[in-house]
Amino acid sequence: MLREATLEPRQEPRQEILRAAARLFQQQGYDATSMNDVAAALKLSKGGLYHHFQSKDEILFHIMSHAMEITEERVINVVRRIDGATVAGAEERLRTLIRLHIQVVLSPEDREITVMLHENHPLPPTLRRKINGRKKDYVHFVEHIIADVQRKHNSPSQVTPRAAALALVGMINWIYQWYKPGGPLTGEEIARQYSEIFFRGAIGSGAIGESRKLPSAVRSSLSGHSDV
Amino acid sequence: MLREATLEPRQEPRQEILRAAARLFQQQGYDATSMNDVAAALKLSKGGLYHHFQSKDEILFHIMSHAMEITEERVINVVRRIDGATVAGAEERLRTLIRLHIQVVLSPEDREITVMLHENHPLPPTLRRKINGRKKDYVHFVEHIIADVQRKHNSPSQVTPRAAALALVGMINWIYQWYKPGGPLTGEEIARQYSEIFFRGAIGSGAIGESRKLPSAVRSSLSGHSDV
Repeated sequence: MLREATLEPRQEPRQEILRAAARLFQQQGYDATSMNDVAAALKLSKGGLYHHFQSKDEILFHIMSHAMEITEERVINVVRRIDGATVAGAEERLRTLIRLHIQVVLSPEDREITVMLHENHPLPPTLRRKINGRKKDYVHFVEHIIADVQRKHNSPSQVTPRAAALALVGMINWIYQWYKPGGPLTGEEIARQYSEIFFRGAIGSGAIGESRKLPSAVRSSLSGHSDV
Repeated sequence: MLREATLEPRQEPRQEILRAAARLFQQQGYDATSMNDVAAALKLSKGGLYHHFQSKDEILFHIMSHAMEITEERVINVVRRIDGATVAGAEERLRTLIRLHIQVVLSPEDREITVMLHENHPLPPTLRRKINGRKKDYVHFVEHIIADVQRKHNSPSQVTPRAAALALVGMINWIYQWYKPGGPLTGEEIARQYSEIFFRGAIGSGAIGESRKLPSAVRSSLSGHSDV
């Protein structure tokens, strides 16, 4: 083995490995990708790779965990910081959740990672349960936000927060199946229309305004995505 | 090779092969499954298998095509037979489409086949394009049905039929990611709540009744699924 081929990635080696592995899994299939392929793509020695991850299962698990961390950091943590005590605040939380979740799905730099979350690759049962637990936690979080808006609105809706949360998470997570950057439906436009469908459909109040103020960081990062 | 191991499946051999292959692909991964595995699972000789399909790609393509045929037969063809000339007729088409599409996703006997449609397995570009073309045709069909209901309703909705169709197809196709037979959300209940969200959300009319008459075959087959 040549010495000069054994380069360590410069920074965040674990994240670089996860990203490169996720890309290979999508390009050539999970099963068809070996630990050797991952090491080669990163110009890592096999030892260098095994220093970080013991197996392909472990890499897949950490890709999925990382996708959940991205969602938790960029959606849950931001939404939690919004004061939801008033009707407008509770609404703002739900509207921000919809936009930020769409933003995570459309994020070009995290795409390799987040797409893996929804593919049905075989993972050992204990690891699978951990990932599924975090997915369920996310749906519960969405469910509570929805329940809160419905309650504060005295919503006449016959839609349960549970069914509404599953429908919302479904319509958003599905975007990766059809979205093409540069297409007529920009990230901003998807967020506007999906919010409209969901607020009218699940809160049952047509009185909710179209364009509420959003934290400017949210708005600018979203419009940034629309023309990538 | 023992002669008695070389049994041909009795009926619809191609469909039996597709079903068995789809099951193996999900259990052990697409790449990890060989043509030999498929032949062995069916107690077919390799020659017997190759008589029907030349390669694993071809099997995967036909699994996906079959999933699209199921959707076309059980959703599109039924919906097309409903007279959509009146407001009630157009609504009935959309409501039936939602129920039947959910029914296809939940169908236990077609699950192996339909799940494969959404997995991102590498398929040669020409075959991939054919499948994607049929998926796009389905979204266009849904889009036209929605546009027609909006028009007949003089809908005040600011949701375009395109975004609405993508949201609807997404929330329904996503069901396979979380649905557990015997859980609190039955097929019938999902159809009711998703219809409510979608009609209010994308048609924008709260005047649409909750429980319209459905062809009795549709209703009974749906409730049949709910307790499987």
